[in-house]
Amino acid sequence: MAAGTGLRERKRIQTRRTLNQVAVRLFLERGFDDVTVAEIADEANVALTTLFTYFPEGKAALVFEQDEDRAEALTRAVRDRSPETDPLSAVEAFMGSRLPFESGDPESTRVLDLIFSTPPLRAYVRTKWTDCEDALTALLADEWHEAESAGLRALSRFVLESPDIAARADAPADALATIFANLRTGWGLD
Amino acid sequence: MAAGTGLRERKRIQTRRTLNQVAVRLFLERGFDDVTVAEIADEANVALTTLFTYFPEGKAALVFEQDEDRAEALTRAVRDRSPETDPLSAVEAFMGSRLPFESGDPESTRVLDLIFSTPPLRAYVRTKWTDCEDALTALLADEWHEAESAGLRALSRFVLESPDIAARADAPADALATIFANLRTGWGLD
Repeated sequence: MAAGTGLRERKRIQTRRTLNQVAVRLFLERGFDDVTVAEIADEANVALTTLFTYFPEGKAALVFEQDEDRAEALTRAVRDRSPETDPLSAVEAFMGSRLPFESGDPESTRVLDLIFSTPPLRAYVRTKWTDCEDALTALLADEWHEAESAGLRALSRFVLESPDIAARADAPADALATIFANLRTGWGLD
Repeated sequence: MAAGTGLRERKRIQTRRTLNQVAVRLFLERGFDDVTVAEIADEANVALTTLFTYFPEGKAALVFEQDEDRAEALTRAVRDRSPETDPLSAVEAFMGSRLPFESGDPESTRVLDLIFSTPPLRAYVRTKWTDCEDALTALLADEWHEAESAGLRALSRFVLESPDIAARADAPADALATIFANLRTGWGLD
């Protein structure tokens, strides 16, 4: 993508990053509910319509600097895994490298605490995962040369719900590993 | 409950049933989206405010004749199970006796088809189950004399998501049994 390296693309990335940084700072200072999108736009020196162009999903989306298509990124992580890695382990590793499991610097930890203490933010993050259900079901069916089935869909849904559950535990990464281990045993994958 | 047998209570039950029957008939005739709650109230000869007194959760709730507290009913089913039944089997039997698994008469089957082809109705039914997550987690912890944990919460959530997944399968009851069997194996309960 030649366009991706141009001035316009760099400006786009910078504007998005600025909006994200301003939003996170204001949310941390005053709490998610007490900050309006109009204030964020104002403080970032962009028009409100511009904010919604960059963050069409609205206020909760502002906590993410990037707007990756998570189903696409997840699919890529599974497709590009090393030969000795099974598909489910690739999904687990992909999850583990992201919120709320990435071994964060203090700044990430504050953002994480903000997300998991703010119901609309937590709901937004959860949806980011669970929206991948159709994609993950199709992907696993393809990888394992199986027909799509209720059992496979259940596995996909349960895997994608796991981060939301694990995030509440005292040791989220351990909790995620435990849930994945249970699912592997249950679905005969170990 | 002496009050439960009085005239007022019988009238209450009758009004609720009438609203349910009218709503289901109109939804089946013209589709959920093309029927307003005002029409339903009108056709049932009650004021719109009365309709919302009986169905405070609104239009989707009208598909249910009864307004049982599902977490409470589920808890009772587990507490009152026979001695040879384990808690998870009691949950499975409770689910199996309800939508979308009850071996229905033709009328129930039509209502089922309506629910599972209408996204807002399907979402409503799904919520009826998933809202039981806290109650089921606490109940299983108590039954098994365990501390509440991420693993136990995961099991509860996955169990409660199962009806929504199984309902899409060609043979919903078989799909539910399969998912429960996988979960039992995974959580070391078989």
